[in-house]
Amino acid sequence: MEIQSAAVIGLGLMGGSVARELAGAGVSVLGYDRDPDAIRAARGEGVVSGVLDATLSGIENADLVLIALPVRAAVETMGVIARRRPRGAVTDLASTKQTLVAAAGVCGLGPRFVGSHPMAGDHRSGWGASRTGMFRGRTVYLTRAAADGDAVERVERMWRGLGASVVELDPEAHDRQLALTSHLPQVVSSALALALAEEGIGARLLGPGGRDVARLAGSSPEMWADIAFDNRDELSVAVAALQVALGRVRVLLASGNEAGLREWFEGGRAWSALAENAPESVAAGPVTG
Amino acid sequence: MEIQSAAVIGLGLMGGSVARELAGAGVSVLGYDRDPDAIRAARGEGVVSGVLDATLSGIENADLVLIALPVRAAVETMGVIARRRPRGAVTDLASTKQTLVAAAGVCGLGPRFVGSHPMAGDHRSGWGASRTGMFRGRTVYLTRAAADGDAVERVERMWRGLGASVVELDPEAHDRQLALTSHLPQVVSSALALALAEEGIGARLLGPGGRDVARLAGSSPEMWADIAFDNRDELSVAVAALQVALGRVRVLLASGNEAGLREWFEGGRAWSALAENAPESVAAGPVTG
Repeated sequence: MEIQSAAVIGLGLMGGSVARELAGAGVSVLGYDRDPDAIRAARGEGVVSGVLDATLSGIENADLVLIALPVRAAVETMGVIARRRPRGAVTDLASTKQTLVAAAGVCGLGPRFVGSHPMAGDHRSGWGASRTGMFRGRTVYLTRAAADGDAVERVERMWRGLGASVVELDPEAHDRQLALTSHLPQVVSSALALALAEEGIGARLLGPGGRDVARLAGSSPEMWADIAFDNRDELSVAVAALQVALGRVRVLLASGNEAGLREWFEGGRAWSALAENAPESVAAGPVTG
Repeated sequence: MEIQSAAVIGLGLMGGSVARELAGAGVSVLGYDRDPDAIRAARGEGVVSGVLDATLSGIENADLVLIALPVRAAVETMGVIARRRPRGAVTDLASTKQTLVAAAGVCGLGPRFVGSHPMAGDHRSGWGASRTGMFRGRTVYLTRAAADGDAVERVERMWRGLGASVVELDPEAHDRQLALTSHLPQVVSSALALALAEEGIGARLLGPGGRDVARLAGSSPEMWADIAFDNRDELSVAVAALQVALGRVRVLLASGNEAGLREWFEGGRAWSALAENAPESVAAGPVTG
């Protein structure tokens, strides 16, 4: 089963990057974006060969439909897609999975929908930031939920074609893990930016290390409000774990406990040093399909 | 006044990198490190032309003495240096300045000592990580305190020769500013690592953005315990500012306030976007000397 046609809904950083790869591999790509400039650019660069309107008429026969939108917009779009009764597989790129899996089920797309979450991207956004090579060597989490084997195979095949490796997680485990591995780092970076803003410290005053920590604060607020809201329970638990670590360091600072401070920093370094031996996923199962 | 000879005490990431630049510029470099392997490597690579023992005998006539040690060891070394009555300028590379300025005063080195803090380096350490080019385009903070004009001129000249730009700060303003711009990002990164460790999440599970945020957690615990202890009052204030930002996001998550979340992330992005227009230093004065 070859993927010959795909519909990409949302031509931002992530959707645009997938569209570029697919087009480069000879796949015929239909594109939709609410921003006409993005569409124009994607057509002009020869990435998108056909333009969809907001009714998504034309996706019926695509081998693959890719929803490359923030989670809230993706949920709304699921209903529009369902009305087209697509014969291909449907997947997405959002950072949370439980809500989308539930939405797919509600509108009858359960057997066709496989959630995707590539561990790729950066703080930029929009078609202008999209590029090829973004998924090479990256992990993509797939949530199969109620999907049939054909849908899983199509989505897996696409990601492997882009050079990514695929790891299956169930939607709940995915959202719990990602609250820690992705959403918490974003919150940490934004919180640092807010603290520095409050203290009147401009970003240019940071050294190279501090800039790395603060870089994610430049990410799209709309996208992250969406993710944080959607995954608020798990994220709240993750932020609480961070607050515990910060509370400890404040006690050590207040009491001038230098040995305790060394242990505290040592704990962070031990975690970094274990990076080589860590498992690929906390709750990874073998990929089947 | 040309710098023709320098003594570099500590041949780690920072000291080693300065020594490489100086040697490359034809300066005769005397070196000390408690690790004989570092000394051997620095000699073998032709960077160090003379080796000092722990008494630092031989630094008397160096045009410049550079203390490239963590702050606590730097304070102890100040006494050894003072006993040699060096005729050149004395500077350091540590991340805090008030303690070293005070120590220089106590042991009679006040007129000779100019504190340096280059905004350069990374999470690695040791001679093996040292390299040329590390200071090019970077800011170096100088604290003149009680130094005479000749000492300031020598230290400034060295940094400009390495391609850095020099900004003067008084020691108190330096430590307050750096608590926010450097020490807080380190604490944030380590706290993230500790939270993830506590939750059983390995570093390999992070995406590229999360890895940026967590990278500093791999820094030397000894060095950072030293810095945090030395600057504990200012750092405590900085961590408190971060805790306020995190407390706010938890309230927004708990109350499911999506508009509030958007504003929260927007605040972080607004700070990032201002990077272009930010002043070079909160409390920068003109450089004279």
